Amino acid sequence: MILRSNRSSIKRINILDKNILESFYGQESYDFEVRNSNEIFVCSKFRELDLIELDQLLQTVGWSRRPIRRVKRALQFSVLVIGLWRHDEKFPRLIGFARCTGDGILEATIWDVAINPVYQGLGLGKELMKYLLKILKSTGISKVTLFADAGVVRFYKNQGWTLEPKGTKCAFWYAN
Amino acid sequence: MILRSNRSSIKRINILDKNILESFYGQESYDFEVRNSNEIFVCSKFRELDLIELDQLLQTVGWSRRPIRRVKRALQFSVLVIGLWRHDEKFPRLIGFARCTGDGILEATIWDVAINPVYQGLGLGKELMKYLLKILKSTGISKVTLFADAGVVRFYKNQGWTLEPKGTKCAFWYAN
Repeated sequence: MILRSNRSSIKRINILDKNILESFYGQESYDFEVRNSNEIFVCSKFRELDLIELDQLLQTVGWSRRPIRRVKRALQFSVLVIGLWRHDEKFPRLIGFARCTGDGILEATIWDVAINPVYQGLGLGKELMKYLLKILKSTGISKVTLFADAGVVRFYKNQGWTLEPKGTKCAFWYAN
Repeated sequence: MILRSNRSSIKRINILDKNILESFYGQESYDFEVRNSNEIFVCSKFRELDLIELDQLLQTVGWSRRPIRRVKRALQFSVLVIGLWRHDEKFPRLIGFARCTGDGILEATIWDVAINPVYQGLGLGKELMKYLLKILKSTGISKVTLFADAGVVRFYKNQGWTLEPKGTKCAFWYAN
């Protein structure tokens, strides 16, 4: 079970029948409802992603488009790929995403955390991150890293992330 | 050939016979001499690392020790592992190291850049980074990232790395 603070937006968890949940989203999926919404949401690390749908999701958050064949390869070589779905028995919809690269044991780095703007403000990003960190923790990883854009620094700080520990700065190198 | 600025510490490159270089260090190795030293140094992505020797190197730079079986697995799942050797036909010595995680196409992150303190100040770290970035660039990666400790921020800045682009902050999450 995922730990919840008093400020959690979670209304209910384990709503779906376990067999239905697993047949749709695979093992270790996590289904929940949040306040101010009657929809069921599911975090899954196994349900296959439609790359066109993912591309559309990433466009809704305003990211520059990347060739789908490159994204496909990047997902194949990511150590963890998470989808967040608005549940529907006929047409589950991908509304959130995150992935990790790393060596599977010492370092894990989170990339491309996205929630469809229509669903922002419900606490879904927080649940997605908790789900992701829980999985990483279960693999024995003790430290996780990410590069937080200026606009989401507070989001991570509120969830207990340490910013710039001991003066560490993020550094980017561009080929051109 | 690796590009050199006027401030380069490189004295000479391509010193070793190509067959000898490749038999010792594998293809695409890079051998060079630097000012203020008559030793030959070689960057290699193929020469196998002795994990005990690597552990000793990382201790010389004061890093906390990590279980060797975890390091072994981390290296297996890294997308690139670079050794910097002081050349010797009998006993080449590992004096520098760096590795990358990533998805092999969109994201590459550099970890564990280390130069034995005895050899610091000769410009070896710079050559190691150039070699590493050249290889990453040849794979089509256009952006490389790292977390720069406070003490080495200037080192990366001097080499053209962008620090905290658009206010991006590094964020760390610890399991315990």
